[in-house]
Amino acid sequence: MEPSCGSRGPGPAAAAVAAVLPAGGSGERLGGATPKQFCTVQGRPLVSYTVGAMERISWISHIIVVVSPENIEKMNSIVEKYGHKRVTIVRGGVTRHRSIFNGLKVFAENNFSNQLLQKPEVVIIHDAVRPFVEEDILSKVVMAAKDHGAAGAIRPLVSTVIASAADGFLDHSLERARYRASEMPQAFLFDIIYEAYQQCTDYDLDYGTECLHLALKYCKTNAKLVEGTADLWKVTYKRDLYAAESIIKGNLSQQVCIITNVKEDVAQVNFLLHESLKSRIKVEAVSVTLSKNDGQLQDIFSGQCYNFVCISDKKYAVEETQKLVDMLEKSNTPLLYPVVLISVHLDVSENTSCSIGMEELTRIKKFAREVKKKNILLYGILFQYKDCLLLQETVNSAAALILALIMDRNPELIGQLLVA
Amino acid sequence: MEPSCGSRGPGPAAAAVAAVLPAGGSGERLGGATPKQFCTVQGRPLVSYTVGAMERISWISHIIVVVSPENIEKMNSIVEKYGHKRVTIVRGGVTRHRSIFNGLKVFAENNFSNQLLQKPEVVIIHDAVRPFVEEDILSKVVMAAKDHGAAGAIRPLVSTVIASAADGFLDHSLERARYRASEMPQAFLFDIIYEAYQQCTDYDLDYGTECLHLALKYCKTNAKLVEGTADLWKVTYKRDLYAAESIIKGNLSQQVCIITNVKEDVAQVNFLLHESLKSRIKVEAVSVTLSKNDGQLQDIFSGQCYNFVCISDKKYAVEETQKLVDMLEKSNTPLLYPVVLISVHLDVSENTSCSIGMEELTRIKKFAREVKKKNILLYGILFQYKDCLLLQETVNSAAALILALIMDRNPELIGQLLVA
Ligand SMILES: [Mg+2]
Ligand SMILES: [Mg+2]
Repeated sequence: MEPSCGSRGPGPAAAAVAAVLPAGGSGERLGGATPKQFCTVQGRPLVSYTVGAMERISWISHIIVVVSPENIEKMNSIVEKYGHKRVTIVRGGVTRHRSIFNGLKVFAENNFSNQLLQKPEVVIIHDAVRPFVEEDILSKVVMAAKDHGAAGAIRPLVSTVIASAADGFLDHSLERARYRASEMPQAFLFDIIYEAYQQCTDYDLDYGTECLHLALKYCKTNAKLVEGTADLWKVTYKRDLYAAESIIKGNLSQQVCIITNVKEDVAQVNFLLHESLKSRIKVEAVSVTLSKNDGQLQDIFSGQCYNFVCISDKKYAVEETQKLVDMLEKSNTPLLYPVVLISVHLDVSENTSCSIGMEELTRIKKFAREVKKKNILLYGILFQYKDCLLLQETVNSAAALILALIMDRNPELIGQLLVA
Repeated sequence: MEPSCGSRGPGPAAAAVAAVLPAGGSGERLGGATPKQFCTVQGRPLVSYTVGAMERISWISHIIVVVSPENIEKMNSIVEKYGHKRVTIVRGGVTRHRSIFNGLKVFAENNFSNQLLQKPEVVIIHDAVRPFVEEDILSKVVMAAKDHGAAGAIRPLVSTVIASAADGFLDHSLERARYRASEMPQAFLFDIIYEAYQQCTDYDLDYGTECLHLALKYCKTNAKLVEGTADLWKVTYKRDLYAAESIIKGNLSQQVCIITNVKEDVAQVNFLLHESLKSRIKVEAVSVTLSKNDGQLQDIFSGQCYNFVCISDKKYAVEETQKLVDMLEKSNTPLLYPVVLISVHLDVSENTSCSIGMEELTRIKKFAREVKKKNILLYGILFQYKDCLLLQETVNSAAALILALIMDRNPELIGQLLVA
């Protein structure tokens, strides 16, 4: 969408909306040296998730990420690696408010050489460490800001808030129902929040934290408060990183693509496995022999599917797996996360006392270590297809292994051949 | 320690201290049917972790768990299953304050037939959904309560707190530095908090949340505020369960016990594996042939080690593993969590083109499914010991697999034979 400064249409889509993400924090509370916005979850820095959440929304025309001077280079490489568009990196100040102000100045002082950096009607301010923000709440705060000048997401208080006296004793406790936690995103008519920052004191810039407060104090704008969901929480402590990791692993495990050729003996296993997985996860089936120009697979890559199952009746054959690896590599989609690739080896031999050769196991491990360098986690599953009576049981076992491997995404287990 | 009501010694150890854990909440915020105190982490309900954290502290003479009437039976079975001692289950009221009051009444109205339920000097009040409470903070609030009548743990506010006007607009925001989040544990002189509950109004009992507030309002006792650590957080949302799961898995992965016989060919692998693991985890080595009366192993069980590695040069032999399973079963220690048991099969044959028979793999899987019923997660690692040049590499690979299996505790991967 082109910015259309000044329009007041019915939805956020009709307004020029930009976003400023302060990402200058020092991460002290995590107890580690890495500021929390640069901590990685599934190998990807949190700030990239948050930028991604904003980018997905077509009516946000531009995203300013404000980082401290020492992290500008790091942020540049993140933007490049994850293919972020519509992002400008801005040098932060020594406090959160000074950083946000720097971000806003880019729009106010832009000489219009860059069309995208034209002053927006509404600006969203959102923390880089709140990666799970959804379009719904962004739309709500933007609409409310258009109508009322300022708006912010709120949540119920989890704990009672108390005032302490100077001597470290309880002075009084607040009645919990009357107060709310002020969260992000917030949104403002650009002219209001920029005016507030221009008017405010050095004390405000150095010790304040709340943009809503500045809009009220300097522009007499009482922000509209919008109830947000629990997803808006701020990654603050180490435990929040654990939680983010689990949520993201869960999100990555929503969909699997099954690739198979359609020989008759494979078809039944394919069908049953598909059915078994379908009850617990979205399954995309690609029933073709892989070829380099396969548009269907390319669509699936672009659709952010990070889990692939290759079913092959060529025992331990790495050829088809290699083809998929090549396609992933040649696809223009940046790999935001490690891809899980599970090679299911169908053993249809009648020989009941078969065995697995160590050389083959070693070969699979070696191959897995190679493709790991391409951010692909390769695992093998051996599927013995002999006894028709046990077929459903084996299918269920294979499905459980596939789901476990997808959920865990464990890099230490690559190259292992598991038995269904 | 025997309760010594009325003593005012130098530390909590000299006071009679009891604890009341309100566990009557409905868990609405988790969005699930199970109240959060009964949600399981590694199969064990959160409330059992919290009771366990209290039980470990010798100077807490008794623990009252207050649950809603429909959960009394469930709580009884938890106490039995996890072998909790010094616990009395009390029927809760319809609100948090009414539940706490019910808990306190047990001490006040006790006719002294039960010595342990004698009125304590100090009572701790702690949430059942804050499982990571440490002795340090409990000791601090108890000491402060002895000195000042009331005390409570506090934390800095994560978000700014705002007051909303009736129309849903911002009224004002609080200056973050002047306020704190009131957390748990809290502690009180029993007579003060009991007096407060007796004096307070129905409105307080129905709509209040803060015990510190009651002590101030009805007994003019300004609580001493004690800065707590981030561990004190309350499991409130689903993401908090994810975080708790990661923390507990991390705690369970601190220690591994390696069991081996000391044949010469095994000794070198044992030594190198020990060294490789030691740099990342506490290793207890038991270099004996297992026997049923082995006191050393019994001590390790009691010491809450939940990870065992059996190194054997009998390829795929389940006998030694079976012995350990039997010992775990016969030990009187209740299994609080699933035990991870990794059977490392040393293959010292000179044959370079060896293979693994499918029958053996099937046998290991079947055995693993059997011991799973005993809450033991069994995994196999095949360790090929042929080429001296590659020995260190294989050792490192085995150590990485062992750590991954211990960290993940994945029940879907039991019975698999991984190759180091
Ligand atoms: Mg703010
Ligand atoms: Mg309270």
